[in-house]
Amino acid sequence: MIAHGLDAALAARLFATLRENSFDGVGITRESYAAGESQALDLIERVARELGLACHRDAAANLVCRLEGTDPSLPAAACGSHLDSVPQGGNFDGAAGVIAGLLALARLRNEAPRRPVLLFALRGEESAWFGRPYLGSSAAFGLLDATDFATPHMRSGRKLIDCMADVGADATRLRARERLLDPASLHGFLELHIEQGPVLLARNLPVAVVTGIRGNLRHRAITCLGEAGHSGAVPRWLRHDAVFAVAELLTELDRSWQSMLGSGQDLVLTAGMIGTDPAEHALARIPGLVRFSFEARSESAETLDAAHDLLLHATRLIGEERGVRFELDRRIDTPPARMDAGLVARLLDQAERLGLPRETMPSGAGHDAAVFANQGVPSAMIFVRNANGSHNPAEAMEMADFMAGAVLLHAGLREMAA
Amino acid sequence: MIAHGLDAALAARLFATLRENSFDGVGITRESYAAGESQALDLIERVARELGLACHRDAAANLVCRLEGTDPSLPAAACGSHLDSVPQGGNFDGAAGVIAGLLALARLRNEAPRRPVLLFALRGEESAWFGRPYLGSSAAFGLLDATDFATPHMRSGRKLIDCMADVGADATRLRARERLLDPASLHGFLELHIEQGPVLLARNLPVAVVTGIRGNLRHRAITCLGEAGHSGAVPRWLRHDAVFAVAELLTELDRSWQSMLGSGQDLVLTAGMIGTDPAEHALARIPGLVRFSFEARSESAETLDAAHDLLLHATRLIGEERGVRFELDRRIDTPPARMDAGLVARLLDQAERLGLPRETMPSGAGHDAAVFANQGVPSAMIFVRNANGSHNPAEAMEMADFMAGAVLLHAGLREMAA
Repeated sequence: MIAHGLDAALAARLFATLRENSFDGVGITRESYAAGESQALDLIERVARELGLACHRDAAANLVCRLEGTDPSLPAAACGSHLDSVPQGGNFDGAAGVIAGLLALARLRNEAPRRPVLLFALRGEESAWFGRPYLGSSAAFGLLDATDFATPHMRSGRKLIDCMADVGADATRLRARERLLDPASLHGFLELHIEQGPVLLARNLPVAVVTGIRGNLRHRAITCLGEAGHSGAVPRWLRHDAVFAVAELLTELDRSWQSMLGSGQDLVLTAGMIGTDPAEHALARIPGLVRFSFEARSESAETLDAAHDLLLHATRLIGEERGVRFELDRRIDTPPARMDAGLVARLLDQAERLGLPRETMPSGAGHDAAVFANQGVPSAMIFVRNANGSHNPAEAMEMADFMAGAVLLHAGLREMAA
Repeated sequence: MIAHGLDAALAARLFATLRENSFDGVGITRESYAAGESQALDLIERVARELGLACHRDAAANLVCRLEGTDPSLPAAACGSHLDSVPQGGNFDGAAGVIAGLLALARLRNEAPRRPVLLFALRGEESAWFGRPYLGSSAAFGLLDATDFATPHMRSGRKLIDCMADVGADATRLRARERLLDPASLHGFLELHIEQGPVLLARNLPVAVVTGIRGNLRHRAITCLGEAGHSGAVPRWLRHDAVFAVAELLTELDRSWQSMLGSGQDLVLTAGMIGTDPAEHALARIPGLVRFSFEARSESAETLDAAHDLLLHATRLIGEERGVRFELDRRIDTPPARMDAGLVARLLDQAERLGLPRETMPSGAGHDAAVFANQGVPSAMIFVRNANGSHNPAEAMEMADFMAGAVLLHAGLREMAA
């Protein structure tokens, strides 16, 4: 195992404490803009201060740790990731990048970097809680608008802005869409993250450098409105059954997805949440209402638009045929992002020097690094091998792979800060 | 309006009080084996006692009101219906039959019937609460078994037998499968009920006599198990997506249903409840689990079996193709029932004598009368015109139509008791 002066024992302790604090009986739950996430930020801040790093919370309640450079006036070399998780998720998605950053900054204390070095421990990356991802990084760049702030929490219904204020954010500054973080103040941004798919495992690689990040478009809740009624007493030709309508729609979208893949387009479609209304549904009642979420992911903005056109077309057609109505909530777009070619090349050189494989791959999932990249900050990512995917309790990253990624992150940051 | 000495004002008062007591903000909720249903039974019992009827609760906690006959040793002429409702349902489904029976018994006090006349105010008819219908009438005939009694409440998870005991049932006698009600003790059973479909409205008939009742088969929860994972990071060929699998299954069943109708079979298919698990689902997570209910209704037991074969076949096929697993819970059967031809003929004659249309129709929905009929009690039903179906707050029965039905019920009971 390569360690290069990074504190592997500290990393192990931090992962263990995070797990203890956020185990929910099944997996890990660190809810965005709520206690579980805050506790994680507090832990990182406490250790960062012990390491002698300056810490503050920005007005969006993200944690920023700073190692001063010999020339404090220069744009900073930055790294970071997020500390929230999906419900019943895993311990590594997000947290690995923050802990790796902390190890890197701790090591850089003795290396007198010319530029300041920043670690961002971001909030609200997971869309599981408010239906919109990258809230923490987006808020830092002043990218959230009034509609975003009014978005209700998926379970409690409490507005995003109120949940943000609950954990210490400055609602007034956020509402003013103030740019808390100036892209020009950053020389670059590196994010280490577990791979959320099976590629590194299959190719037997501990780490890889990411070349681009898929974007996505989302509807957190599409409502299909039919007509409730007694299941036995309404003949088929008079039924307006929301469940059969949504089933037909999803089957249609699934088929179109398959043919778009066949024509070489990059696309993933997901309806992760679906449900009749427990307050009114029944075994013997024609379902009058179904809600479901819709997500399309692609490296191509054009493919995302095409998927949305498909959705609109199919809902119109099926709505007319079946006498049901589809109500689409706001379309939420996260554009695809390209990683900085120079940064990627330098990370690959560093990997080679460190005896790590010189490998690249695209990211199927979105990341905060895409927000930084799309704001003009030269950005790159390091993926760490991980079994069983993410967003589930079975995430499995080997500590040796994590340390390899952290060493590469440290090397990349050192070069960037030099 | 024909009234024939029946107390229309009392009926209006009872409907109004029931509505007041059980309005839930949207519709009517009288939960089976819970406070809402009990309050309705209490109301009917209080008024029945004021009218001089003898009342008792059977060991299944149903209310039985009795008007003594001049020959108390004869099998009784019986009527009745249920007092529970679906969540956010309507005020008339069930209650109309109980109130009509009360008016009939009140009138019969002055007509010295030879046979005793019974009114059953039954509990637990709606499957919305425990996934199985006709609990009250089935319990009265000793038809519920240990599996039924262990069935959890759809929301609270509390076992049926415990909920029954909560409202006064004798759990020991029920568990012993005692026949609380001997079919031979009944000379016949009449149930008045609102029509739950649009037929009488379309044909402009206030009432009709029912010739047969559709049976049904049900699964209250079929579980589709796939594999959860990050939506962006698992390629399509590695996905085991429970939502797309269930969508394909339901679309397939919907198509088969259509072709079975085309071949002249009587069939209704419904998946009234569907949902991913709110404790773990997320916008950006491949859905690893979907639960849904399944119901088939038909006048033919063979068609019900054919529908079930279809379900088994399609779940096996789609399960294999998509690498998901379908787990079916217990199949619950309610056999179709034929109404007694002699009773139907006599009711039609009475209708003609009363100046009402001489009309028959089948019942698409199941009813407690089917349980009585299948126990060998000669049974018949009177349907009352009703707009907007049932199992929803918009049920709309005109009081004039209700009174026409009640007058016919009274005439039928008087003849049966003579």
